[in-house]
Parts: sequence; C-alpha cells; structure tokens
Amino acid sequence: MTFPVVGMVGGGQLARMTHEAGIPLGLKFKLLSDTPQDSAAQVVSEVVIGDYRDLDTLRAFAQGCDVITFDHEHVPTEHLRALEADGIPVRPGPDALVHAQDKGVMRARLAEIGAPCPRNRIVSDPADAAAFAEEAGGFPVILKTVRGGYDGKGVWVVRSEADAADPFRAGVPVLAEEKVDFVRELAANIVRSPHGQAVAYPVVESIQVDGVCDTVIAPAPDLSEQLAGEAQQLALRIAAELDVVGHLAVELFETRDGRILVNELAMRPHNSGHWTQDGAITSQFANHVRAVLDLPLGDPRPRAPWTVMCNVLGGDYPDMYQAYLHCMARDPQLKIHMYGKDVKPGRKVGHVNTYGDDLADVRERARHAADYLRGTITE
Amino acid sequence: MTFPVVGMVGGGQLARMTHEAGIPLGLKFKLLSDTPQDSAAQVVSEVVIGDYRDLDTLRAFAQGCDVITFDHEHVPTEHLRALEADGIPVRPGPDALVHAQDKGVMRARLAEIGAPCPRNRIVSDPADAAAFAEEAGGFPVILKTVRGGYDGKGVWVVRSEADAADPFRAGVPVLAEEKVDFVRELAANIVRSPHGQAVAYPVVESIQVDGVCDTVIAPAPDLSEQLAGEAQQLALRIAAELDVVGHLAVELFETRDGRILVNELAMRPHNSGHWTQDGAITSQFANHVRAVLDLPLGDPRPRAPWTVMCNVLGGDYPDMYQAYLHCMARDPQLKIHMYGKDVKPGRKVGHVNTYGDDLADVRERARHAADYLRGTITE
Repeated sequence: MTFPVVGMVGGGQLARMTHEAGIPLGLKFKLLSDTPQDSAAQVVSEVVIGDYRDLDTLRAFAQGCDVITFDHEHVPTEHLRALEADGIPVRPGPDALVHAQDKGVMRARLAEIGAPCPRNRIVSDPADAAAFAEEAGGFPVILKTVRGGYDGKGVWVVRSEADAADPFRAGVPVLAEEKVDFVRELAANIVRSPHGQAVAYPVVESIQVDGVCDTVIAPAPDLSEQLAGEAQQLALRIAAELDVVGHLAVELFETRDGRILVNELAMRPHNSGHWTQDGAITSQFANHVRAVLDLPLGDPRPRAPWTVMCNVLGGDYPDMYQAYLHCMARDPQLKIHMYGKDVKPGRKVGHVNTYGDDLADVRERARHAADYLRGTITE
Repeated sequence: MTFPVVGMVGGGQLARMTHEAGIPLGLKFKLLSDTPQDSAAQVVSEVVIGDYRDLDTLRAFAQGCDVITFDHEHVPTEHLRALEADGIPVRPGPDALVHAQDKGVMRARLAEIGAPCPRNRIVSDPADAAAFAEEAGGFPVILKTVRGGYDGKGVWVVRSEADAADPFRAGVPVLAEEKVDFVRELAANIVRSPHGQAVAYPVVESIQVDGVCDTVIAPAPDLSEQLAGEAQQLALRIAAELDVVGHLAVELFETRDGRILVNELAMRPHNSGHWTQDGAITSQFANHVRAVLDLPLGDPRPRAPWTVMCNVLGGDYPDMYQAYLHCMARDPQLKIHMYGKDVKPGRKVGHVNTYGDDLADVRERARHAADYLRGTITE
C-alpha cells in the first residue's frame, strides 16, 4: 500500500505519542532524533540520528518523507523555507510556525487580527522595561525572550527596573507584557488541515505549578458556554489567519472581569491536549497527523463527562517501576503514559489520565497517581 | 528507568498492536520477525530478523528480554521448554500453550476438566472418520489436523468416507468433531497473570464468513446474563486449570438448545478482542502485556453500550488509501486500524471499530467502512 511517510523532527514524548497514534492509521513514521535514547527513538522503527539545526541533515532526512512535522518549534525558520523550496511539504509551514517560535512576531500578528492579548511591546533595556511598566499600570511586569523559552524558562516576573537586567543578557529581543490579573488559565485546542477543515476540542483548564503544566481538566469546570465558544472561535480564527496546519494550542488567561487573553501559541500536539488520548473520540496526536497529511479529521468530542490529566514529574524515585505497579493495582481504570525518559527532578517523564462522571473522584485519582509516581506521597 | 523488556515472537498485526499498547506503558519492546516488512517490524525500534523455528535464533533473541510472549502459536513446544530451562520466563508457558498448538491435546485436557466440547476423538483414517460419524449421529463431521490450522485452514467439513481422504495427507494426526448445530459463535476473552489475577471481558458474538472472522459485536446481543456468566466462568476456569498467562480467547458455539461448547482456544490477543482497543477501558493488548509482566491488570469493562469490529480484507484495491480517506470523511468517529500489510485478496489487512448507543447504527458504520475499504461497495 502507498500509505504516506510522516517525517517527524524531534524525538521527545510528543513524537513518541504521535507515532503511537499513527500506528493504527497505517502510516509510515520516520524520526529525526538527537540521540537513540530519546523518548520517541526508543519506539520508532526508522530513526535518523542528527542535528535538526543543520540544513544538510534536514534535507537528507526529508528524502522519502511525504510531509515534515514537528515535536518542537526549534527548527530554524530559514531551514524550513529551504525544505519547502525543495518541494517538501512542511506542516505547519514556516510562515505559520514563526508565530510559535518568536513571541514578538506572534504578538504583532495577533494585534493585527484583533486577537485579545495582554498589553505588550518589545523593550530595549531595563529602563525601557520600566517605561513599559508605567504605561501598563506599574510593576510587576513579565519579560520574555522572544525565542527559546518553554516551561517557564525564558520568562521573568520583574518587580523593578533594577530587577530587569537578566532577560537582556542573552542578546535576544525582549518582550514585555502586563502581568494579567487572571482567575485561571485555559487552553483552546484546535486542529486544522491544509484544505481548511478544522475541529475544536472542548476548552480545558490548565493548572501550572512553578511555570510547568501540572493538571488539565477537560472541559474547564464552570466555564460559561459563551466564553468557551469565544475561546474556540478565537483559536479557529488564529489558525485560519496564520494558516496553521496541525494542532494549535492557544493558551489563554481568563481574567477576573470575564475576558480571555492569549498567553502563548503552540503549533504541535500540546500538554494541554494529552487528556484527549483517553478522553476524546480522536486524540490530538491522531488528528495532528491526519491534518498534516490532509486527511479528513476525526471527531474531537469528549468520551466522558470529565477527563483529568496530571503530569508525572521526576522526583524521589530514580526508578518508578514499583510505584507504577502500585498505581495500577490501586486504580484499574488509570491510564498511565510513560515516556521512557530518565528520571531527573522536575522533568516531565510521563502523565496519567483519568475519566468519569464525578469530577472530584476523577481528579483525586489522577492527582494521587501523579504524586505517588513522583514519590511525593507513599500511600 | 528499569522498565522491563518484552520479547515478542512473531511480526504480525497482533505484535504490532501489542507494541502500540506497550508504548504508553513505558515498556521496551523487542521483536523477532521473519522479515523487515512484517506488520510489526515496520513500527518497532528493536527488531531481530530470524526464524522462530530455530532454537539458536530464539536463544539469541531472548538475551536481554525479561519475558517472551507471542504473536502466534507456532513456536515448537520443545524450544519453549529450552528457553524456560535457560531461565527466561515464557508466557504463556509451553505447558499452557501446547493446548492452543495441538487440538488433540486441547480436547483431551478440556474433557479432563469437564469443559463442554463437541463430541470428538482422534481418527486414524477415512474409515475411522466414518466410524466416528456413526457414533456422533452421522455425516457431516468436521475433521481438523491437530496442528497448523488457522482461519479455516486445516479444517474440513466431510460429508462421506470418500470425502475424508484430504485431511490425512499431511501426515499430522486428525481430530474428528461432531458438526455442532449452533445458533451463533461467541467468544469469552479473559486475561490472567502469573499471580492468578484475572479479568473477563464481556462475551462477544463473532460472525465468520468462509471460516474467517468477519464481525464481532460486543457485548453479544440478546445473550442471557446466565449464559454470559457461564461463558466467562468457563474461560476463567480453563485459564486457571491450564495455567494460561496473558490473553485467552475461548471461541464458543451457542447451541440451539441453549448450551455453550468450546470450539477453539487462542493464547494471545485475538481477533475477537480487537473491539477492546476502542470499546473497553483497557484493551486486550494492554492487558496481555500487563499480564505477561505480572503487572496488575486493567479494567476490562466496556466504554460504550455497543462496540462493533469488522475486519478489512484485501479485495479490489491494491492501494486502499483513497478508500480510507473516504471512510474517514464519511464517519469522523470511525476508528481505523491498518496493519501495513500488502493487500492480497482475502488477507486480513486491517479492521475498523465503531461504538455508540444504537447497535443498528454502530453496525452499519463498521460494515460500510469495511466493505468500502475492501471495494465491495463504492458508495
């Protein structure tokens, strides 16, 4: 059969889970990974070990791929343009992906299309950051390097001009944003295909701890239908305006006065969508590959009233196997997803999904499993 | 992390789907496959190409595996005993597996434990087959070679002594069985672990066409609770008596007078359990690997009132991709499972699962997709 070959750049857990979702679809999967030990490289048949920052490596990898897609946003935009010029479909394409790579470009474009954002502008030095703070209602403000940050890295909460030196040291442009007075964080996840079909997942609540995603609740509890609809429409509009192909996560602030503001964009399967593996008719991973291949998309609706995802972070157990065994015995309905990664403190090494009718119960089960696997609790 | 290594002998679709189920469990998976083109070899990282009938190949493969399990029942029993003697856990073990390898051994053992079976005995030649027919109420009777048959191969419906020569030509012992007057075929699927934990899936109805599984309906419609319970108890008892580890499929006849009789045993994930991938909380594949690793088992209960599986057989399309695209567009809830195999007429190349509240609708959707993929229908 001439089923297509999906070329995945990056060997992390997103690639691992995309491969898993591609197996039933009958797709061929080719992986460009930094090392043979990477999460996805452990489970994929055809692995090329190489550096995604090197154009020749990318070009050689792309040979025989019907489409190139990504585990992360770090491939240089100009390399993606070169691959496109070679005739390789790159999805999402560089003109879309740059908005997930560069927060300055993202904010400028979102302003153009009227998407609600925190007040923001590029600042040139600590004094300029202080000037921005004055415009935005005073310190604290958020400073972000426009490229290279993730999971709280590359982000500073700055309380004074004197406090604002660090972000400028990297020599990367710095974006200042007002510190939004938010009630909670939401994520509106959609998937869009090249021919323009799009599906919207239920809007979820995303709870961060120390800047790292900790818990996702699907759907977001007590979210008004109107605001949920607004968030989905906004994500669909951003995807269409930016010509995003594949999964788009729009991370949102829900403000105290009942508005939503765009926090971040991610153009790949996203931590806020991991619940879909066990909680939705079609997972974000399956829909991402369907989209990048321009296949018809699958139904994004939930299969249970509530699904909760908790990340499993590295903690006290260098080997989680005994804890994992305990969790399986305690909760036969628990869905564990391990990434095959070495345990390091604070590192995302897996996640758990639970689902059911009773949110308190579903949440307790996910929380318990994640804490037990980490070693935070022992009973 | 010291997550264990599962060694899978055989590169077919059952191995492919077991690997898929093992990815979220964080397991390492090592495959012994006949060729690099085999269904599972396409999607697994660590593949050894070799002949499972060769003990040295098996021994080398087993190095570094924490357990050996199977995609098929064809590994010679004596090789499995040799691996066990080397200290490699083989699950199911040879003393259990022989009952799925040799129909004569299976029938003798089932008689010992009082499991209801069609009348049967080993017959030595066509005249003896005719004598059996007389004992069993007359022709037609079923003749089976005790080893080597599957999907209707190695099975003959014999209407006279003159008709009974073929089965004896292979030089393999021949088992004669009465031709049961059955209303339908059922399957009772259970999973059992070495420490004796066991879970029972809902009893399903299995519809064969030309001796090949065509459709599975979960649960079996209009099956009395009592007979369903009897079937589950019977499967659990067989597993315990034969010390089966892993997935056990007990294929059953439901007779016109309301009894169940054991037709076949399979000790591995089974076609009658494919519906569990999308229809049960824990799939047969996930529970099979959990069992062979002696991990606690997952909840086998269904997630939807009805789930239907239809096999996709090779037919008119050497390349099913266009048909596959059509099926996805027609039914966004359809779950397609392709095996990556070349299409040959009548060959199992995939299956589809559908689920929902309305059996007629669920069944129509699966039927349509399977027929469309095969090319039997074009609209």
